[in-house]
Amino acid sequence: MKKTFWKKNLGILGGGQLARMLALRGQEMGLRIHVLSEHATDPAAQVTPLWQKGSPSVERDLAAFFKKLDLVTFESEFMDAQLLAKVARKTGVRMAPQPALMGRLQDRLTQKRLFEKYALPTAPYIALNRAADLDRAVEKLGLPLVAKQRRFGYDGYGTFILKTERDRKSFLPHLKKNPNGFIAEAWIPFRRELAVMAARRSSGECTFLPWVESFQEHARCLWVRGPIKVRAGASMERKIQNFLKGLNYTGVMGIEFFESSKGLIVNEIAPRVHNSGHYSLDALLEDQFTLHWKSILNIPFSKVQVRAPAFAMYNLLGENQKTMSVENFPRDVSLHWYGKSESRAGRKMGHINALGKTPADALKKLSQARKGFRV
Amino acid sequence: MKKTFWKKNLGILGGGQLARMLALRGQEMGLRIHVLSEHATDPAAQVTPLWQKGSPSVERDLAAFFKKLDLVTFESEFMDAQLLAKVARKTGVRMAPQPALMGRLQDRLTQKRLFEKYALPTAPYIALNRAADLDRAVEKLGLPLVAKQRRFGYDGYGTFILKTERDRKSFLPHLKKNPNGFIAEAWIPFRRELAVMAARRSSGECTFLPWVESFQEHARCLWVRGPIKVRAGASMERKIQNFLKGLNYTGVMGIEFFESSKGLIVNEIAPRVHNSGHYSLDALLEDQFTLHWKSILNIPFSKVQVRAPAFAMYNLLGENQKTMSVENFPRDVSLHWYGKSESRAGRKMGHINALGKTPADALKKLSQARKGFRV
Repeated sequence: MKKTFWKKNLGILGGGQLARMLALRGQEMGLRIHVLSEHATDPAAQVTPLWQKGSPSVERDLAAFFKKLDLVTFESEFMDAQLLAKVARKTGVRMAPQPALMGRLQDRLTQKRLFEKYALPTAPYIALNRAADLDRAVEKLGLPLVAKQRRFGYDGYGTFILKTERDRKSFLPHLKKNPNGFIAEAWIPFRRELAVMAARRSSGECTFLPWVESFQEHARCLWVRGPIKVRAGASMERKIQNFLKGLNYTGVMGIEFFESSKGLIVNEIAPRVHNSGHYSLDALLEDQFTLHWKSILNIPFSKVQVRAPAFAMYNLLGENQKTMSVENFPRDVSLHWYGKSESRAGRKMGHINALGKTPADALKKLSQARKGFRV
Repeated sequence: MKKTFWKKNLGILGGGQLARMLALRGQEMGLRIHVLSEHATDPAAQVTPLWQKGSPSVERDLAAFFKKLDLVTFESEFMDAQLLAKVARKTGVRMAPQPALMGRLQDRLTQKRLFEKYALPTAPYIALNRAADLDRAVEKLGLPLVAKQRRFGYDGYGTFILKTERDRKSFLPHLKKNPNGFIAEAWIPFRRELAVMAARRSSGECTFLPWVESFQEHARCLWVRGPIKVRAGASMERKIQNFLKGLNYTGVMGIEFFESSKGLIVNEIAPRVHNSGHYSLDALLEDQFTLHWKSILNIPFSKVQVRAPAFAMYNLLGENQKTMSVENFPRDVSLHWYGKSESRAGRKMGHINALGKTPADALKKLSQARKGFRV
């Protein structure tokens, strides 16, 4: 533990909403938060005077940023992990989570291999290196199958669901353009999608936030509700804890699951704060952003305390409105608005949280409240 | 209600911890928060790129600040209210609460007269204009009595408790130096001190946070716990609501009481967010800082929801430690650290919040946790 942690200079790579909430909740506990991002209008750039204009993919910018800092973290795992490792080594500034790990987790193929190594149940898959692999995948995994770009895919970008022979044909050019760039995954019929946030600090202490159900629309998270009692949740947490220990991971991690007839299947993981944990800002004594700072600064965690029987979170996704507005400001929900200057269809502009008697009750408040926003 | 409230430029006069928490919670709901203060190291200056160096008592600085803004609020009522009114008028920028009201509330004599006007029970008092008034005060109010500086007194500064003839004599030079500068108040024997936060928006909607007990040490708030069931609390709330309506007040207001054998006596009020409401950051769905922004932006309030049976707040008061540190970071409490660069005896460096089964239980956690800090 850093006894004088509030004198440390902490950096976040990236300036989006995850960085913004990390900055705000870090500042609440007194941390000095620096942000590296390209535009002064970025959500996180708006909430700290310690913003540096620059790109996390440019070595010169990174080096200048790292030199001011004691510890660096990130809001997205889709960065150049090798470059980050190099800058960290050269400047002697620690990154948490480690960039080497970011490299392994940002690639769906190496991520899959990690799951296998740590016995985390995951959908059967085949690496797609060339056209012939696709035939093999269809043969072994059947149709429908899911072709996923190995790197830099998120929120449905880079994901292709192949249901028919025709889908397969129209996907082939993507594979040809990007050989070694995809994996094929068996389609997992699921009852619902679940998620859980884990946190680990270097002392080895590990904690889990409540399990939640998450609902995606057009491959983007629309809402989350919880807490959800999950059969075999405890045994899955033990496996994840073992996985985090094996990686010597420090930080929070978001883990997404399919609840299928074969039990819990890990869909994907994100080595960072995660949309499925945003409810924690209002529903827990210690939110995921505070928990991330505690994790990487090695500060003891609080017991997870849910402050109501149930909770929900609803994303405010952009609808291309020219003038974003609240027509009817909802009561009894808590608004988290990211300050983005432009709305685009599907863009995450903010989210609202509510508490309730049951997960369904909390969600109902939000789907009502959502109608008051034009985003 | 401002439909596009996140595009407004909002200003805070002053850069201390109240401004910092106003900024942080305002930014969480997407507000664009500007701060006017003298030093870049001020608590609030550290959490926004929209900080302006300057003094809220210098017209030129104020004018430059107001010109950028749609609405201005403040973290302290001890400012030059006439100057503020002038700048607001010249720039056409609204202030909330109104500066004229700040002027009446910052002076203990005019504050007392307002209490009388709205039938708020308050300790008997006499204005001290010259030495003879002190004799009259002793005669009418008896000893002990409390001499309070009319303006710019806080946290015990400018307050003199006169118990003996000798105290009276040693106070006289202060009165001579500052004629018309004091009031004398009858000493109110009290069982405990209570406080409540009120909020009102221009629609007329009014809400009250839970009543709390507050404990002062060396005339500074040490801790707060609640919720406290107060006999006649509801009828007092009606009186306060009437008072706020009469003033056409918008914003949150802290009201402090003595619980005496004669019932509730208003001790003093602060037209702003208040130390006795800091527990709300963790104990309520809608904290006092969010509520202040909603009040002055005329946004509907949420129902007050306490997220645990009870709560407490403990101030981290400076002990002149050269190196502030956490020796033993406490679990299950939430830390709010203000980022002040220097510790001085009694200075408010931060606070910790906890939830519990009873107010006493929550407070016990905090007094234990407090031992881990060297500030």
